[in-house]
Amino acid sequence: MKAHLSRRYRISASHRLHSPAFTGEENQSIYGKCDNPYGHGHNYIIQVTVSGPVDEVTGMVCDLASLDRCVQAKVIDRFDHTNLNVQECFFDKVPTTENLCIVIYQLLAEDFSPARPDCVKLERVRVEETANNFFEYSGKGRDGSSSNR
Amino acid sequence: MKAHLSRRYRISASHRLHSPAFTGEENQSIYGKCDNPYGHGHNYIIQVTVSGPVDEVTGMVCDLASLDRCVQAKVIDRFDHTNLNVQECFFDKVPTTENLCIVIYQLLAEDFSPARPDCVKLERVRVEETANNFFEYSGKGRDGSSSNR
Amino acid sequence: MKAHLSRRYRISASHRLHSPAFTGEENQSIYGKCDNPYGHGHNYIIQVTVSGPVDEVTGMVCDLASLDRCVQAKVIDRFDHTNLNVQECFFDKVPTTENLCIVIYQLLAEDFSPARPDCVKLERVRVEETANNFFEYSGKGRDGSSSNR
Amino acid sequence: MKAHLSRRYRISASHRLHSPAFTGEENQSIYGKCDNPYGHGHNYIIQVTVSGPVDEVTGMVCDLASLDRCVQAKVIDRFDHTNLNVQECFFDKVPTTENLCIVIYQLLAEDFSPARPDCVKLERVRVEETANNFFEYSGKGRDGSSSNR
Amino acid sequence: MKAHLSRRYRISASHRLHSPAFTGEENQSIYGKCDNPYGHGHNYIIQVTVSGPVDEVTGMVCDLASLDRCVQAKVIDRFDHTNLNVQECFFDKVPTTENLCIVIYQLLAEDFSPARPDCVKLERVRVEETANNFFEYSGKGRDGSSSNR
Amino acid sequence: MKAHLSRRYRISASHRLHSPAFTGEENQSIYGKCDNPYGHGHNYIIQVTVSGPVDEVTGMVCDLASLDRCVQAKVIDRFDHTNLNVQECFFDKVPTTENLCIVIYQLLAEDFSPARPDCVKLERVRVEETANNFFEYSGKGRDGSSSNR
Repeated sequence: MKAHLSRRYRISASHRLHSPAFTGEENQSIYGKCDNPYGHGHNYIIQVTVSGPVDEVTGMVCDLASLDRCVQAKVIDRFDHTNLNVQECFFDKVPTTENLCIVIYQLLAEDFSPARPDCVKLERVRVEETANNFFEYSGKGRDGSSSNR
Repeated sequence: MKAHLSRRYRISASHRLHSPAFTGEENQSIYGKCDNPYGHGHNYIIQVTVSGPVDEVTGMVCDLASLDRCVQAKVIDRFDHTNLNVQECFFDKVPTTENLCIVIYQLLAEDFSPARPDCVKLERVRVEETANNFFEYSGKGRDGSSSNR
Repeated sequence: MKAHLSRRYRISASHRLHSPAFTGEENQSIYGKCDNPYGHGHNYIIQVTVSGPVDEVTGMVCDLASLDRCVQAKVIDRFDHTNLNVQECFFDKVPTTENLCIVIYQLLAEDFSPARPDCVKLERVRVEETANNFFEYSGKGRDGSSSNR
Repeated sequence: MKAHLSRRYRISASHRLHSPAFTGEENQSIYGKCDNPYGHGHNYIIQVTVSGPVDEVTGMVCDLASLDRCVQAKVIDRFDHTNLNVQECFFDKVPTTENLCIVIYQLLAEDFSPARPDCVKLERVRVEETANNFFEYSGKGRDGSSSNR
Repeated sequence: MKAHLSRRYRISASHRLHSPAFTGEENQSIYGKCDNPYGHGHNYIIQVTVSGPVDEVTGMVCDLASLDRCVQAKVIDRFDHTNLNVQECFFDKVPTTENLCIVIYQLLAEDFSPARPDCVKLERVRVEETANNFFEYSGKGRDGSSSNR
Repeated sequence: MKAHLSRRYRISASHRLHSPAFTGEENQSIYGKCDNPYGHGHNYIIQVTVSGPVDEVTGMVCDLASLDRCVQAKVIDRFDHTNLNVQECFFDKVPTTENLCIVIYQLLAEDFSPARPDCVKLERVRVEETANNFFEYSGKGRDGSSSNR
């Protein structure tokens, strides 16, 4: 039996949406008030979905404590209570929530090792920026092909 | 990298579930208290999901302001603070939330032109009628084939 | 030990805000799109708060099943899946959420008889019209004096 | 037009995570504080998703009252306000939320007969254990093949 | 300037409502399915409200880390993932949520020492048993007099 | 009949908690990761509660459109999508949520003129920093006396 498990984590961070590829006016037009030079911020909710067979003895898809440690080390410790713009991974990328979502997926996918790494698969990362706005990435390229795993 | 973006909008509307194809008794049996001749109402949450490649320069799937204008003009201005039964699109259809969901999908799909219309795809419309009841439509017919796009 | 107990109930109803005391133009100016002649609707959340000593043997403020029966009979059966404007109690009053809140308080207060009526007090009724808008009434007049009990 | 309908139900139950296949120490290591011999509990939210063509006359995917009766009889009456460990279906299985989710799916799938059983399909059962932790099962085996229907 | 600060904590626990002062039939009649001999459970939300002057230099009512440590040690470590009935404080009291709320208030009040104990006051404890059911206690006796502080 | 009306507004902002009155080490000890020099951010929910007699003809406590314009002009336009630390009102005050709450109360109270200013009273401002953390201010000084109105 293959089941999906989703877990929600929370971080608070600030960002400024602004690209050096655009003039000041273009940045204003594209990012609006998100281009405020002093930044603004959000409480982001990060939802990680994994899938795998339910172990017949433990009754679990994966060990939650291991999953939590993995997300804590790779995501929360890095991004919580920070300014996303000063993170190395956003030096050459605008820290939109789309990009944050992809970065988090890639950080988790590159060495995703909670218990039973042989069979647990990272399905999807969802980042909620506000109660009315959220983004999802599942490792797919434009043509639908999977770039991970 | 292809990502999904979902955005939630809210409208308040009233409706009566009643079909001229049925007798009064049949309407009562099928729709129960939703057949109240004076109507009743809901706060509907409309969740619109689009997908597309994340633009490498802007870091965005689509321009949110354009998406909002599109939903405002086609959906919110039309349905918010109205009685669904007196809308032209429900003259020949019972305004169940299933039908409302399909109508909203079709209104958005017929000329879906937020920024980057070449690559942004309308994936799904979800309408929540109450906190415990919601409906989704993704443009699919009974055989799974897509009728839009 | 005196504790407060609050319980949340839900109804779906429609209404039109419009007063015969005003001209059409005045109604428009005062009620805006809530004056739509065909009505609109909401999922209302009704929160009833009572207080009383915690019974030393049962460990309860009041019998929840009795409270539920009381609210069901007086409030939910009357207002759920209805049009508030055709209710007798709104023949001479605009069915704003303020007035709905007061009416519900009065209906519950006039003969409030869940278990232990000698010591359980109706403290407050709160009606949430939307997730961002709510009203409370606690039986007080303009001068702060209590009109009930 | 094929639409999805999801409905949310709630139960309160207790459980202890503990397997006779493990030593006491192993149980502690695998289940942590969930292995407390006296149990603990949760408010579970059970979300049932069905799909089917929207009936052209009624405008509905399925009769909600029938669906509710089916879930009430098979799931809520059985599990609400109980200790999951003393349920027959958990005599030989640890009552993790993964297993609860699969059991509920199977109970609903084995004779899923709300109105229009010919065309309404059980898509998925989701069980939320806490606000930050949820599980989904859609009747799929490890190889992605469907074991039901 | 005196402000109120509220903080929400979560525990999962099980309980059985049953009093030796009543016959089996009376227990059934008073507690209904909550009298299930094997227990059931909830995700409880515990909301602690304190008040005090906002410190002119730090800009804070009290040190949140100290408050968290206090609640962790006195409440969460004691009750989370447990069966309330086997707690010493419920040997002679039915573990209703009313009583749980009063016990938590008393545990916090008896030696409430987050930062600035001289001026921070415990105002109120609220325990939410389900999304529709919550209880509050503020240290008051039947006559409104405060028993703490 | 005097009723309370509460309305919820949302802003996204960033801040850094740091006081020049303290050494770097003291700031670290008092504010922890909130002292991050590059800042972090939140989605703040601002709940404004007013009270007043329900107008006998309109059935309303106050005109919501006027209240919204007042909050928009004084609070949302000023703080939404900004860095709180560069706001003039926080030049000499740490932008804790306590202080943000008091500042918002004072901005609204100093010239609170939604419809019917003669009888509508600003009761309370509540600012939610995260889902588990909120602050309230009602214009009271340490001795309980009201400093406004």
